[in-house]
Amino acid sequence: MAEKPKKPQKLKARLPRGLEDRGSAAINATRVMVEKIREVYERYGFEPVETPAMEYTDALGKFLPDQDRPNEGVFSFQDDDEQWISLRYDLTAPLARYVAERYGTENLVLPYRSYRFGYVYRNEKPGPGRFRQFMQFDADTIGTAAGGQSSAAADAEMCMMAADTMEALGIPRGSYVVKVNNRKVLDGVRDVLGIADDGQWLTVMRAVDKLDRLGIGGVKQLLGEGRKDESGDFTKGAGLKEADVALVVASVEESNEPIDPRLRDSKIGQQGREELEEIGKLVAASGYGSDRIRIDPSVVRGLEYYTGPVYEVELLLDTKDEKGRPVRFGSVGGGGRYDGLVSRFRGEVVPATGFSIGVSRLQAALTLLGKLDTRPEFGPVVVTVFDRERVADYQKFVASLRAEKIRAELYLGNPKNMGNQLKYADRRNSPCVIIQGSDEKARGEVQIKDLIEGAKAAAAIASNQEWRESRPAQFSCREDELVAKVREVLDRHGVKWG
Amino acid sequence: MAEKPKKPQKLKARLPRGLEDRGSAAINATRVMVEKIREVYERYGFEPVETPAMEYTDALGKFLPDQDRPNEGVFSFQDDDEQWISLRYDLTAPLARYVAERYGTENLVLPYRSYRFGYVYRNEKPGPGRFRQFMQFDADTIGTAAGGQSSAAADAEMCMMAADTMEALGIPRGSYVVKVNNRKVLDGVRDVLGIADDGQWLTVMRAVDKLDRLGIGGVKQLLGEGRKDESGDFTKGAGLKEADVALVVASVEESNEPIDPRLRDSKIGQQGREELEEIGKLVAASGYGSDRIRIDPSVVRGLEYYTGPVYEVELLLDTKDEKGRPVRFGSVGGGGRYDGLVSRFRGEVVPATGFSIGVSRLQAALTLLGKLDTRPEFGPVVVTVFDRERVADYQKFVASLRAEKIRAELYLGNPKNMGNQLKYADRRNSPCVIIQGSDEKARGEVQIKDLIEGAKAAAAIASNQEWRESRPAQFSCREDELVAKVREVLDRHGVKWG
Repeated sequence: MAEKPKKPQKLKARLPRGLEDRGSAAINATRVMVEKIREVYERYGFEPVETPAMEYTDALGKFLPDQDRPNEGVFSFQDDDEQWISLRYDLTAPLARYVAERYGTENLVLPYRSYRFGYVYRNEKPGPGRFRQFMQFDADTIGTAAGGQSSAAADAEMCMMAADTMEALGIPRGSYVVKVNNRKVLDGVRDVLGIADDGQWLTVMRAVDKLDRLGIGGVKQLLGEGRKDESGDFTKGAGLKEADVALVVASVEESNEPIDPRLRDSKIGQQGREELEEIGKLVAASGYGSDRIRIDPSVVRGLEYYTGPVYEVELLLDTKDEKGRPVRFGSVGGGGRYDGLVSRFRGEVVPATGFSIGVSRLQAALTLLGKLDTRPEFGPVVVTVFDRERVADYQKFVASLRAEKIRAELYLGNPKNMGNQLKYADRRNSPCVIIQGSDEKARGEVQIKDLIEGAKAAAAIASNQEWRESRPAQFSCREDELVAKVREVLDRHGVKWG
Repeated sequence: MAEKPKKPQKLKARLPRGLEDRGSAAINATRVMVEKIREVYERYGFEPVETPAMEYTDALGKFLPDQDRPNEGVFSFQDDDEQWISLRYDLTAPLARYVAERYGTENLVLPYRSYRFGYVYRNEKPGPGRFRQFMQFDADTIGTAAGGQSSAAADAEMCMMAADTMEALGIPRGSYVVKVNNRKVLDGVRDVLGIADDGQWLTVMRAVDKLDRLGIGGVKQLLGEGRKDESGDFTKGAGLKEADVALVVASVEESNEPIDPRLRDSKIGQQGREELEEIGKLVAASGYGSDRIRIDPSVVRGLEYYTGPVYEVELLLDTKDEKGRPVRFGSVGGGGRYDGLVSRFRGEVVPATGFSIGVSRLQAALTLLGKLDTRPEFGPVVVTVFDRERVADYQKFVASLRAEKIRAELYLGNPKNMGNQLKYADRRNSPCVIIQGSDEKARGEVQIKDLIEGAKAAAAIASNQEWRESRPAQFSCREDELVAKVREVLDRHGVKWG
């Protein structure tokens, strides 16, 4: 009913905070990245699996890092039958549900190596570079033999795969490192300190997890009474005594000092150190030296559910942002062993280890580092509309180009101004435009205007006049030569087609 | 803290109704489909754009088809600031928001051809083949010249692109058809009938939209008093008088009868017919005959927002389902002109036309038709663990295979039973397994067991014993020959690597 449009109230076109639209450069870069990661994971024998964006809230559990307010941090709604459903906030909790549902059936071959990527959703306060929808790419190995070398091999494999992935993405060896630690080493510290309260212990671990960002001083404050940040906000600390703070700090700093004798006595701590040694041996045997994978006692990972080895991939490169300020990238992925996550459903421990890449974050880093080709590709050939009554003829030119797998389009704006059509072709980064006025039509000819040549010629106009005259940027050809001539133009400039 | 696991209450691992997990065959099939569609759309000069999964509820509007209860049908939640946010239920409403936000700025080149694919969410009653999350692949052209040949060319292009896409997906010409109609033709009928009430008119159109499914009889009931379906549920009809029902039915049936003189007098109806003629001319000029694109007066499309040409892609193939019952696929995509959708934000008409493929639905059809290769690919080479103390050595074999881009993995289950390891390799569809016991180790050798050859040999064991003896399915080689020998096995069986 185009003739009697209702005048609706004008709505404001806007997105909720922390969400973003993505254009072709970002989309293409993600596609290239995802393909490269996929290739590495496939080579490691991992297979794809996909779960939906939403799950029952109770199945997801409460495993968000830095989450003081339970049940916040996720987007939730009630179903018809009053059950709560949430958008997934990571890809690990849904996988645990997936595996638990099929565990011990014909539908799941164990050990199960799988990968998946997709968007996850966090109902958190957005900030610069902090979105409420972002992409993760996860790999997990579930149902390996418990303990021993097989278990260590699963963790070692994750670390090697992380290293291979960074190199596949163009980050040179030496410019990244996979750091490995073991939660059991930290549990040893807990033993020695005699911390019974899980909440207090989580506060200790989250304090340690901030070492990179806050330095030793800040961590000490968070282990003790608390810390006031630049904005004046106060974060309550773990309330440890000074000697205990010192022990925690000593245990997470890299040093060549012998281990504190108190820590040596903790059975779980010792077990953690042995597992780390085993991982170290396995990666070394496969030729991965400490330039790629390195034991680092400061790695904690913020998540509550880790039960053994934890790892983190750090970019060592730094660069400057558009305002010339230095940018350190830090962690672009990480993971660890979570033997308890499937057991929430099964009541038995199921060995599992996983690794997650923050795709959106890594993409931002790779873009800043110039490792992703985000140059705009050439656009389509544009067939202009000279005579508005002859659109069918122009459309036919377009169809003939497309039939030869040449990207081509008809100008669909108001055709009255040829200048606007050429400006459009320019903004579309078209390699050439096709023009046919009545004179050309009468002669059975078309004009091809080579925009790439034209731009070069314009740039070199003073010195290269002669050359320009011999290779004009605009020429005529017979109608039936159109496709062949366009192909020549594209080939001359290395524009892909076909 | 693996030693003191808490015993949590056991949760049931399950998904909410109408959601599904997807395995590797389905994921790979979607990837192949999406790539083929993408290739066609790129060739037509369309460029990718992506919006997030959620939008402000008011920006999405209420454009769900068959939606009697407003505000239902979508998944919604309130943001911190009390504003309502919903998951997108299609990809058109978010695009309208995207375009309105950038209209008239440097960030949008007009006319704007774009494509996008992704999941959409419907909070509806799920049923067989009817999910609450499914994938769409859309293309839209926005901001063409209003009216005239440019506008018709945009619609014609959508139809041609739909036809090309079907063929790119392997559906032969003649096995699909793109059917085109024009809402203005139907508006002409409205004029003649003098229906002032928008709600009543929507009921009329939705009745006509069910022609395919219910036949003329059912449509007549829905145009009149109403219809009781097989389950006994009664759907109230549009309440038209018998003569008016006859006029509506006559106007949407394909026939060679001359047009009813009353309809000829409607200006908008006449305009609709002229636009259809224009589209017909344009597609014919580009060589698309009625075997591919056809005017069909019964096409309506359920959505309220269409303002001109509407089109629908129908698969003409039928097949049988797994129980031998005939399956008709019907519509796998469609779209139309929606000049009013962007204007909700802008207060001015913005010409727009779009086409949407139901990827999940089309994939189901292509799978049933055998057009998608869903044969399982070969799995990775499996390196077995013969001696559990020598995992590092086996891991090294794996690493050497992966370094040559051969898919390979270490067996990570309990290694005590070699039979289980071979069974695992079988279930993973591995081309071969690597075994090294202590004897082989002492000789510096490894065993390669060719599972493909082994399966063939087992099948042919009676008649081909001689041949089998000359090409044994298991052989030894030197450790340093491992990669080369595995490569030979893979090449012999045509297994892709590298």
